[in-house]
Amino acid sequence: MTAPLFDRVALIGIGLIGSSLALNVKAGGLARHVAVTTRRRETLEKAEALGLGDSYHLEAAEAVKDADFVILSVPVGVCGAIAREIAPHLRQGAIVSDVGSVKGAVIEQMRPHLPETAEFVPAHPLAGTEHSGPEAGFVELFRNRWCILTPLADTDPAAVAKVRTFWEACGANVETMTAEHHDLVLAIVSHVPHLIAYNIVGTAADLETVTQQEVVKFSASGFRDFTRIAASDPTMWRDVFLTNRDAVLEMLARFSEDLASLQRAIRWGDGDTLFDLFTRTRAIRRGIIEAGQDTAKPNFGREATATPAREPAPGER
Amino acid sequence: MTAPLFDRVALIGIGLIGSSLALNVKAGGLARHVAVTTRRRETLEKAEALGLGDSYHLEAAEAVKDADFVILSVPVGVCGAIAREIAPHLRQGAIVSDVGSVKGAVIEQMRPHLPETAEFVPAHPLAGTEHSGPEAGFVELFRNRWCILTPLADTDPAAVAKVRTFWEACGANVETMTAEHHDLVLAIVSHVPHLIAYNIVGTAADLETVTQQEVVKFSASGFRDFTRIAASDPTMWRDVFLTNRDAVLEMLARFSEDLASLQRAIRWGDGDTLFDLFTRTRAIRRGIIEAGQDTAKPNFGREATATPAREPAPGER
Repeated sequence: MTAPLFDRVALIGIGLIGSSLALNVKAGGLARHVAVTTRRRETLEKAEALGLGDSYHLEAAEAVKDADFVILSVPVGVCGAIAREIAPHLRQGAIVSDVGSVKGAVIEQMRPHLPETAEFVPAHPLAGTEHSGPEAGFVELFRNRWCILTPLADTDPAAVAKVRTFWEACGANVETMTAEHHDLVLAIVSHVPHLIAYNIVGTAADLETVTQQEVVKFSASGFRDFTRIAASDPTMWRDVFLTNRDAVLEMLARFSEDLASLQRAIRWGDGDTLFDLFTRTRAIRRGIIEAGQDTAKPNFGREATATPAREPAPGER
Repeated sequence: MTAPLFDRVALIGIGLIGSSLALNVKAGGLARHVAVTTRRRETLEKAEALGLGDSYHLEAAEAVKDADFVILSVPVGVCGAIAREIAPHLRQGAIVSDVGSVKGAVIEQMRPHLPETAEFVPAHPLAGTEHSGPEAGFVELFRNRWCILTPLADTDPAAVAKVRTFWEACGANVETMTAEHHDLVLAIVSHVPHLIAYNIVGTAADLETVTQQEVVKFSASGFRDFTRIAASDPTMWRDVFLTNRDAVLEMLARFSEDLASLQRAIRWGDGDTLFDLFTRTRAIRRGIIEAGQDTAKPNFGREATATPAREPAPGER
């Protein structure tokens, strides 16, 4: 049996991502000790009840003591404060990483606080579900998903290699790029899609001509897919939009420009423009399925049937 | 054993919906004879190879002869031409129905052609997948989905009741409303969601700063859900937007207005506005799951893992 990759891993934040990491460290024997820390006592107790770690701490400073690998799995907006808090307690040569959906802002916020003796390897696993909290984690979450590393110019390549090995052991494929490029890519493949999903669910909820009950009842015709994304963690996503502002606004401007042009095609009955786009987009879907990033099963292979938990009362809609 | 609901059902169009209807008629013994008709010889031959009907016709006029139930499962834009074509051949008292996603335009196009002796019961099953063609159909497609009927003021209630019984036998829940209200409801729960899905996939494909290969590779972070919807049948969807223009433009204007306000919140760092919306939208998702219209499983319960069919070649992205 080979030695574990790390002596002590400190998991700061134990939500969907943190708990899935804990399960992977345990399943893969990736560390001798897992120290779990989170600010809320209730969450920490849940994590302990789930047996996610070897020690549990309300103070991040305690958890990182003697840790050779520290991972922040917290909303992007609190990364800076946590970096400042743990910095004086970091062990010489400790690798510090994170899982934030925005990389430029995380680096900007954390880097000034971290000591020279620590190695900072920002990371972002492109994995998640619409569920949150320590009980939402599962060991397969990262399997065949991408994890993007955005090391700094002065990061020790050995530390980067170790973080890569860690993510590969969690089942992920690892890619390296600059933080700036990461933020641009994520703006279009993740941030703007989430924003427009949140937005249309809000628009639908606010209508006077169509009731909320009708929106729910008839949602299977397209709308429901958007509601899954729009059920994602509100704090995490607020921070994403506040911290990746420039790239999101840039992609959003293009989206709106294109939408205005489709709107014009509809108004003027320009069927060819619509048909051309609708044909082109099919090819992208095929590419995603070929790349193994989604299932080819109709409707994502989800169960076609379900018994309603409740029927709307007569006159309710 | 009770007598079948109908003597002869004529299925005009044998794509995803038509073929699923054929499978239901057969499974439920809903008719003595199923006449299948479609304009393209290749499609008709596929339908025959799949054994979807009892007789196969390139001419709709032939298929509807002696039919007591005629269902058009074709893009909305060709309903009028087909109505004109079949009208002289309809049997006395035949019930004519359709499955179009837009009801006002279908009525406007079909009604002038249909004889007084036929009963017209416009219908719309809110069911589908991103796949098209006769081989895409399956018997469970309509199970626990809604089918909306929009009968006219002068439609015989007995005919409406019979169509309701038919859809219930296919597993659907049936609801009745005016064509006008249907078109408004569908604009927000289906048409605008499809349009923005098509649109963002187009926007992503056109970027210069992020390659198409990257968009595909990293799509699991949100984008891939949109690509499923944006893989829907181009002809059908072109016709939807051209024929439900007013309701779509109205809902689209509200969507864009709301999006502009979110954009402003991002620009000015107004986290509270974002957080409030993101919290509110979660409740809608819960309602949909409680109503049995979607699965509560994370990520729609789709397979978390898949082996990529191909890896991008070095330097391809």
